Parts: sequence; C-alpha cells; structure tokens
Amino acid sequence: MVNQRADIGWQSSKSDSSGVSNSGESSKESSRCSTPVLDADRTDRLRDKMKRRIESGDRWFSLEFFPPRTAPGAVNLISRFDRMGSGGPLFIDVTWHPAGDPGSDKETSSMMIASTAVNYCGLESVLHLTCCNQTKEKITAHLNKAKRLGLKNIMALRGDPIGKDWVEEDGGFNYATDLVKHIRCEFDDYFDICVAGYPTGHPEAESYEDDLRHLKEKVDAGAHFIITQLFFRAETFLKFVKDCRAIGITCPILPGIFPIQGYHSLRQLVKLSKLEVPEEIMQVIEPIKDNDAAIRNYGIQQAVEMCKVLLASGEVPGLHFYTLNREVATMEVLRQLGLWAEDPRRPLPWAVSAHPKRKVEDVRPIFWASRPKSYIYRTQDWDDFPNGRWGNSSSPAFGELTDYYLFYLKSKSPKEALLQMWGEELMNEESVYEVFTNYITSQTNRNGHKVMCLPWNDDPLAPETNLLKDELEKVNRRGVLTINSQPNINGKPSSDPIVGWGPAGGYVFQKAYLEFFTSSENVTALLQVLKKYEPRVNYHIVNVQGRNTTNAHDMQPNAVTWGIFPGREIIQPTVVDPVSFMYWKDEAFALWIEQWAKLYEDESPSRMIIQYIHDNYFLVNLVDNDFPLDSCLWQVIEDMFTLLDSPPETQKD
Amino acid sequence: MVNQRADIGWQSSKSDSSGVSNSGESSKESSRCSTPVLDADRTDRLRDKMKRRIESGDRWFSLEFFPPRTAPGAVNLISRFDRMGSGGPLFIDVTWHPAGDPGSDKETSSMMIASTAVNYCGLESVLHLTCCNQTKEKITAHLNKAKRLGLKNIMALRGDPIGKDWVEEDGGFNYATDLVKHIRCEFDDYFDICVAGYPTGHPEAESYEDDLRHLKEKVDAGAHFIITQLFFRAETFLKFVKDCRAIGITCPILPGIFPIQGYHSLRQLVKLSKLEVPEEIMQVIEPIKDNDAAIRNYGIQQAVEMCKVLLASGEVPGLHFYTLNREVATMEVLRQLGLWAEDPRRPLPWAVSAHPKRKVEDVRPIFWASRPKSYIYRTQDWDDFPNGRWGNSSSPAFGELTDYYLFYLKSKSPKEALLQMWGEELMNEESVYEVFTNYITSQTNRNGHKVMCLPWNDDPLAPETNLLKDELEKVNRRGVLTINSQPNINGKPSSDPIVGWGPAGGYVFQKAYLEFFTSSENVTALLQVLKKYEPRVNYHIVNVQGRNTTNAHDMQPNAVTWGIFPGREIIQPTVVDPVSFMYWKDEAFALWIEQWAKLYEDESPSRMIIQYIHDNYFLVNLVDNDFPLDSCLWQVIEDMFTLLDSPPETQKD
Repeated sequence: MVNQRADIGWQSSKSDSSGVSNSGESSKESSRCSTPVLDADRTDRLRDKMKRRIESGDRWFSLEFFPPRTAPGAVNLISRFDRMGSGGPLFIDVTWHPAGDPGSDKETSSMMIASTAVNYCGLESVLHLTCCNQTKEKITAHLNKAKRLGLKNIMALRGDPIGKDWVEEDGGFNYATDLVKHIRCEFDDYFDICVAGYPTGHPEAESYEDDLRHLKEKVDAGAHFIITQLFFRAETFLKFVKDCRAIGITCPILPGIFPIQGYHSLRQLVKLSKLEVPEEIMQVIEPIKDNDAAIRNYGIQQAVEMCKVLLASGEVPGLHFYTLNREVATMEVLRQLGLWAEDPRRPLPWAVSAHPKRKVEDVRPIFWASRPKSYIYRTQDWDDFPNGRWGNSSSPAFGELTDYYLFYLKSKSPKEALLQMWGEELMNEESVYEVFTNYITSQTNRNGHKVMCLPWNDDPLAPETNLLKDELEKVNRRGVLTINSQPNINGKPSSDPIVGWGPAGGYVFQKAYLEFFTSSENVTALLQVLKKYEPRVNYHIVNVQGRNTTNAHDMQPNAVTWGIFPGREIIQPTVVDPVSFMYWKDEAFALWIEQWAKLYEDESPSRMIIQYIHDNYFLVNLVDNDFPLDSCLWQVIEDMFTLLDSPPETQKD
Repeated sequence: MVNQRADIGWQSSKSDSSGVSNSGESSKESSRCSTPVLDADRTDRLRDKMKRRIESGDRWFSLEFFPPRTAPGAVNLISRFDRMGSGGPLFIDVTWHPAGDPGSDKETSSMMIASTAVNYCGLESVLHLTCCNQTKEKITAHLNKAKRLGLKNIMALRGDPIGKDWVEEDGGFNYATDLVKHIRCEFDDYFDICVAGYPTGHPEAESYEDDLRHLKEKVDAGAHFIITQLFFRAETFLKFVKDCRAIGITCPILPGIFPIQGYHSLRQLVKLSKLEVPEEIMQVIEPIKDNDAAIRNYGIQQAVEMCKVLLASGEVPGLHFYTLNREVATMEVLRQLGLWAEDPRRPLPWAVSAHPKRKVEDVRPIFWASRPKSYIYRTQDWDDFPNGRWGNSSSPAFGELTDYYLFYLKSKSPKEALLQMWGEELMNEESVYEVFTNYITSQTNRNGHKVMCLPWNDDPLAPETNLLKDELEKVNRRGVLTINSQPNINGKPSSDPIVGWGPAGGYVFQKAYLEFFTSSENVTALLQVLKKYEPRVNYHIVNVQGRNTTNAHDMQPNAVTWGIFPGREIIQPTVVDPVSFMYWKDEAFALWIEQWAKLYEDESPSRMIIQYIHDNYFLVNLVDNDFPLDSCLWQVIEDMFTLLDSPPETQKD
C-alpha cells in the first residue's frame, strides 16, 4: 500500500479559508473523509486507481480468469485468487461464458466467481458481459444482479453470435457499443466500463481502420479503458496505441499478455481468436512441442522480453495477463519484471473485502481469523459495517451457517487426505491431542502423514503463530487444543514483515490472545487459577449448550490489535467481542461434527470420541491486557496444570 | 472513577446462550453497550448511581449552592464548581430563588447556574423547584426548559408562601406532593426527583408524625430520594431515619450537613429554618462569636464528629453539604473524613460534560484544551457528538463565538490586573514575547507582577505542560509564542498522577504537540526546515486571512492522545483535526484583539502592536508522529532559528 500524501504547496494552498470557513454549509461540503481511509485505493473507483497510478508512474498488472466447469474446480480457483491476489494485481477479470449459465447462482457461474473474488477475496474485479443474442431486459437483469453483489466494473463485449451467419437485429444489441450505451443509459456512471481492442483488427472487421473507428465509438459511448486481444510482438501493440491516439482515443489501453504455456493451448487460442503466430515463434516451438516444460520456459522468456519492451516504451501503464487459470507462468513473468509484490503491505491484519458496501469496515472479531470467508458470508446481509468502533456500528445479527459445504469453505483436501491427517481410527481423546500437536509442529504423524490443516484452520500455521510454536506444542500435548492465538506486540514498526500492517511509519500493537477447546476438569481448575490474574486477563468460557462464564466488563468488546499511524486516527481492526463469541462458538463446535466426526461411520468409536469432545469440552478464550509485559497466558495454563496435578485438598484454596 | 466489574459467577451465569442466541431479533436486544462506557457513572441516572454506590458500600457526598446575585459572582461560582467538582461530589444542587427570576436566561438565574454546572463543568446537578403561588403552566414551562438544557434531576419543594397567611388553593400546588405528582404525570419517568425531609418535623406541620406522613406521601407520589434539613446532632437524624423506615419509606435519605462557618450566618439560618441550636453548641460559640476563624474551626470539628457518627451508623449512604457557596469549611470536613478525592481519576483527559446528549462524546480537537467551555458552547447545537472516531460522527458546524463576553468565558481577572500582567504599555513585539515567557516561567515581570494567565489560557500552566517548561521558555523568548503543547508519552500507566486518565490497569499514550503564533519570517524558515521532517511531523500553518499550509493526508484527523484499557476498545479522546483548526484559528486570532488589544486606547502604540501581530503572525501546530522516540519538535524550532541565523545564501538550500 502506498501512503500517498498530497503535498500542498505554500502559495498554491489547497485548503485555504475559502474552502473551510466559519459558515456551517460550506464545511458540510468539506473535503474531509468520513472514514479512515487506510488506503485510498480501498474506496476509489477502478478508473481513479488507474489515473493515480498513471500519474505516479507506478506500473500495475491485472489477471484474467475463466469460470471453472466443476464445483471442486471453483474451490481451487478461489484458493488461487487468494494466492495470486497476494501479488498485488490492480484487478482481476472473469470471462462470461454464455453456455455456462453465466448469470446464475451456480458455484461455477461467471457472476458467482466474480462476486466471490470481490466479496471473499477482496479483489477489485471486472465482470465480462456479452450482449449478442440477449434481450435488453436480460442484460439489465444481469447488471442489476452484478451491482447488488458489489461488482462495479464491466467488460462490455459483443460476444460470439450463435451460428455462422450473423445478421444485425433491429433494436437489439449488435455491437459492444450498444452495450456500453445501454449500461451508461440504465446505470448512469455506476459501472466502470472496459472494452476490447484488437491490435491487428477484429477478425470480422472490414479493415484495421474500420475496427479502430469502432473502438473509438465504444470509447465515445462511455468506456473508461481498453484491454487488447493478445499479440506476439511489442511493435504490434505500440503501433496500435499510436493509431488509437491519432484518432483521438485518450483512455488507458492495456496490452493483453499471453505467456505461451503449451503447444496445444496456443493452437486452440490462435484458432479461436483467428490470430497468426509469428514465424519466429513457431520456429522455436515446433521442435519442442512435446516438451511442456521447455515450451513454458520459452513462453515465460518470450513474454518477459516483450513486456520489457512495452514498459520501456512509456506507452504502457499496466499489463493484462491471460492466465488460463494457471499460476506458475504468469507469476514467474511478473516476478522477473519486478511487478509481483513479494512482500505485500497489508492495509489491515485481515484481507479487506472489495465490496463497496464494506469499504468502511475496519473492525472484526478475532474469532474468524482463520475463517474470514465464513465471517463475510455470515455478515453479508449487514447494512452497516463497523467503522472504528465495534460496539457502535456493528449489527449483531449473524447469518446462520447452515451450509457447511458452502463451496468456498470446503476443505481443499479430499476425505481420504483428511483421514490420513486426522486418523483413520481414533483410540481416545489423546489421539485427538496428537492431531493438534502434529498440526502445530508440522511433524508427520505415526502413519507418516503431515497434518496440514484442522477443521478450524484450512491452512498451515500463520508466520505470526509460528512465533508461539513451542508453547503451543506443549499445551496441545496436554489437551489444551488451541485453534487461534496471537502473541503480544508492544509497538513494532508497521513495516514489520510478520506482524506489520497499515501505512508506513506507524506502530502496531497486540494483546496476547489464546483460544482453545479443553475438558471440563481443566476448566474447573482454570477458573480457580484465573482469580489470581484479575483484572489482567479477560476470559470467556462456553460449552456447546452455551453455558458462558466471563469477566468482560458490561459485555464490552476488547481491542486486541491496533495501530498508530502518522496523521491518522487510531485503527483497531481486531476485537474480542462477547456477543459475537456466542455466534462463533456455535460454528466452532459444529466444525467438530461437520468436518471431523462425519468422516467416520455412525456409532464408530472414532466418531463417538469426537462427539464426546463436542458435547463435553469447553471453548475458552483468554486475553492478556498487559501488552507491554511478557504474555502471562502460558503461565495461566501452567498454573492450571499445576493445580490439577496437586493433591485434592490443595485445590480447595 | 471506579472500574466496577460484574463478577459473573460460574454457576449463576449472566450471559448464557438463552440471552445471546443465534436468532437475529434477540441479539438486537442484547445487553451490549453501544458506546464505550469509560465510566458507567457517565450514562446512568442519579438514582442508579446511588443504588450502585449503596450496594458497593461506597460513601459519597454532594454539595448545595445558591445562585449568586451578580454576574461577576456567577463567574466566581462557576470557577468554584470546577474546583469543588474535582473533589468528586456525586452531585451538586442549586437552590431556586423565586425573587431572582430563577427560570430566566439571566447569568445569575437558578436555571442557568444549574445548566452551566451540567454542561460546562460536567457536574451531575439537581435543580430545586418550588411550586407555591405558581401556575401549572409556569411549572411545566420551567421543567421543559430544564429538560432542554440537559437537567435530569429536580428537588421538588413547596417553597415559602408570599405573605404570612397562607391559604390552600383549589387545584393549585399546595404541597410538594402536588409538584412531585405533576412532574411524574407530565414527564413520566424522565426526572429523578428529590424531596426534603425534616428531622425535627416541618415547622408548619401539626406534629412530627404528621410531617412524616407527608414525607411518605411525597415518596409514594414518585420521589427517588430524600435530603434532610440541617440538624445539629447525629441522633436527631438517626431517629428520623428509623421513624421513616418504620412507616415504609425505603428510598435513600441523605443527611443535610451544615458546617458552622460564622456566628451571624448561623443565627440567620436558624431564624429562617426555625431550628433550635442545641445548648452545648451555643455554649461554645457565644464566647468566641467575634472570632470568625475560631468559630469556623469549631464548625469543622463539630461537623466531622457528627459525620463520623452518622457514617459509622451504617444508615447513611452519602452526606449532603450546605456550602453557603464557600469552599474552605466543606472541603476541610470532607478531607478529614477521607471523602474528598485528592487525586481524582479522570475518565478522559478533558472534563466530560454531564449533558445527556453529550454522553457518548469521547473525542475532541486538541485546540480548545484550555478553553473547553468555549468548545462546549460552540458545539451545543450539535445533534451527534463524536464517539470513538472524529471523522465519522462529528458535525463540523461550529457555532459562531460572537459573544466574547459570554459570562463563563470571562477572565477571572479584572482589566486592571490584566494590564499589570500584560503591560500598561507595550514597546514592541518583544514586549509581547516577554509576557509569554513570564507566563511560562511564573516569574514576576518588570513591574513586579506575576503573569497568571494569557488570553488563550485563563489558568496557570497545567502540570503536564510544566514538564516542557524549559523548552517552552527558550522558544517563547525568541518569538515562538506557544499557546498549547503536550509532551509525547509512550505507554504510561493510566494511574499516572500527571498524565493518567481512564480506568485502572490501562496505558496512556500521546504524540508530542506544539501550537504557537510566530512571525511570517519564522514561518518561511520553518517550512524549509519541515521538509527534513517528512513524514514524521504533521503541520498546519495559517494566518488570520486563512492562508493555510498543511501536509495532512486527505485532511484526516490525527489522534494525539489515546488509551488502551483492560477489556475495552481503544479510546482516542484528542485529535488534531484539520477542519476544526480553521474554526479554532478564528477564535485564537480574535482573542488577540478582544482580550488584549482592547485593553488599550484606540490608535495607541500598544494596541497597534497587538493589531500588527494579529494581522501578520501565523498560527502553527506541529505533531511529532513518532511517539516512541524523544520529541523532535524542539529540534525543528532549533533548526528554524539556525536557518534564520545563517547567511542568506545558505537559506536557499
């Protein structure tokens, strides 16, 4: 994230008293933001982001994906969004597949994939839309739905007509221009609109010049930027840009980059797009056409060379990649160009959703730290999101999480892999302790498998949690089954690679946090011990029936992560909120059954062990409020075990 | 402030899942506070505060005042409210003087004095109201006005009839009971109501028993607590309480304590209240009746002894003091009883207003730190007050401060004293620097007078500012005329006697802040110097015409004071807000003319010097964002002087 500062000159004052006078009205229209814009990018429209990047000379990249064919494919693609999103694309786009029910609610539809990218992965997204053979009503319905789902950008395309002999329809959508006009007419300035450019002319155009004129029409109708069809030589694109500028097209033109990834995919694409692959490329590829690795390496090298020429020309503000839903080649090209963000600055400790409705959101309960998509899903119907203070603006109405198989919450691992990790057969509660311990230590279990995930954590330990590894291992081994934790932090720079977030020049802080399941015997001892730690430690302890014990003051939330930045208000992105905890505990307990117990046969001993834990264990969270001191939470657990180990009469103390 | 924690037992769970279930409706009514209650006392009604104090066994005191006769008397009384408020009374009350136009907008009216205590001094206040010889319409109008002004508590009294021969009026207000009923009928449960009790019976009552029955009627009609007439023997009160309890009066009964302060005031009061002074007291007093100090000492001792007996009885939750608008005796009695808060915990760094509308307010711009009453006045028409975040909920519409002679903003010093402090005659700008320097150092000026105040600071330096005394002296001597400053603080305990605030067990933080007037030559050099301190230092620089230079990011507010507390969200009570600064600068510049220049004759050299400064100097504020490091602001000023002292060609660098 770039902390851009408006450098207001001495003489050319931006905010002199004419703008901020003593009269009530003028100040109402002052330039003051009503929200703590951590990153100006969060609230701006795509066109504004591009404008700012162009002005600053900062180059960007964007990534194109197509909707997958199957539900597991969708789960994989969403994971890929998370991984590729971390490299810092300005936006991604999702193609429109008229044959695949693209506007439906199916997990694999263009609409749902784009919406998931925006809402759950926090990616600025462009949804493609084709108008050919569509009624105006249908198009308007799609656009309304897109708007409702938080999509703000449309790539307006004609699409391929059905059947070979296409005839213009009167009053219908015959060209992308008609679609652009329709969008602007029906939705005014709501959507940012992208249109396609053809560096070698559209295959159906009468001439290159005629196609350029069509492009000018699309832009004049209201498009904000252009993405081009793929091409194989930098000069093809540069000539095209020159020709566009010559006829008065002034908007950004992004080159479509296609790193060659294989012989067959190249041939297929070339056939579809009616492009010719230059002789010099074919000469390299033909001899190695059966060697996938060699072709991919060549494709990467070829794309890097071409992109370098493009960027050096000064005509290219950003590069658009046709990824074919694959990661390796595109990431490698971007790495070699120095455009991939190796160490992305996080604006907040959690991934910010890109839905415009959520743009003010800057506080969340810590409980969903490892399940952010579940949190977003369960709060999707909120009208307001907390801004600055949890207690004030949050709606406590969490949606039910009835569908544990919600596609983007599905485990990436199939059932067999889960059984290998978590045990084909559990002997007793200690078998469960072992699974947790192996997850923490990343050691292989007795069957030789690494435990890569738990029902509450679909990914390996976060780097930050790794700091606590030794202590975590010790307590999990003894049946304190940890599912969430953070160390205390007393003012580390916001640029810290592990715990840093937010604008440069700031300081981040945390209170130590520990959340775990444990037996009711342990809880009885823990409550004894916690008396010694008043008021330093705040706790919430609850079982599946909701029997809740807490020392939270007036049920107020406790800020456990916050940051202090130059020229900003305080940001406190994570809280322990007593009310939300009661919603989380339902989810946390249910995961025992839905994701673990159900791997086993009904009535099987393994299933009954998990069921027993679900029915009898407590979910505990602890906060050490004394963030400048070493965390006392490990001592609390230690004291609990000491008390449990001591003879009964001492326990009465 | 007491950080009371509800200790929720293990078995008797207060917040089990039946209260906080997964259904949307029930959670809407959850017990969660919507505001960050720093001190539960801030939002509760007086009856609730009493209830909590009684339950906790914590004793309190309250103070009674009468409205002054003159405007300067009102200014003095308001200062007394500030001083006596710091000792921690649960409430104060203001008597109703039917002869003094008590419901009017006059500075001396009962209504305005009580309203000022609530709104400007942050004191929970009870307004007396008498009903005798009043129409219902008039009474309702008074109550509506009181409500509008933020008053929530009424002491309902009959008052003294005009003329000796009082006859009951049909349908009129004949007894305090009628007034209580009227308040409850017209205003439902809005007001907390207090009534008077007579330990020796009302002088006009037929009998002690008859008077007790009247009291029971008043309570049954809806009064919440009783304050008694003064008495001289503890047993008088204790018998009275016993008799009240016997006939079923269960509400709190507060003894009215009258420390004898002088022979004549005692005689007058006794005459008015038709009380008899016990023989054992008269025997002591008569011989020393001309020795005021001796009588006062006796009065203090007598009151302390009586109060000790009362408190020891267990029947007395709090003591009510008839102060006669004097400080010394009451404060001494309270000190000896250990009830005076020597080191009051501040809930926030600034005094919280007691107006119910402002109860959520917990952020203010730093500029008015020394003029909080002006800030309250200029924001009195706001519908919302910022809660948690300045940018979000604050209305930027500041009221005009046209009336610089607003009585509670008047300087406590008369014109002559101001001239002695600030100079009968100014020679040049340096004479002004000297005034500022003498204020900082508390040294006497060349005429032998201490500079106790400045137009921007009516009180001597705050203890916190004293920490910066040496640096402040140095820069003021050279024409950096400081009017507001705070040191940086990196996590001091919230209990720190100088900079602490908020609940116990927390940590407070500050960014270093400096605000001053200085010449345009200095500002030119300063701007050069500030380039070296980007982005560490945020600045705003403005002259009287509003020419403004700043490096504030998007005009966002900068939090400069914040606190982290056990089990709470972050509190950031003070911000540097770019928009408010433009309102403040009008006030800050106007004070040069209104409070200083106008002390001198038109066209006099002294007046023209102040006018010159007003017209040509700039108001500057600086924030050092790097709060964990030593403040760099002194170095910034030092660098500015170095640059000014260097030969012209070096200045171009």
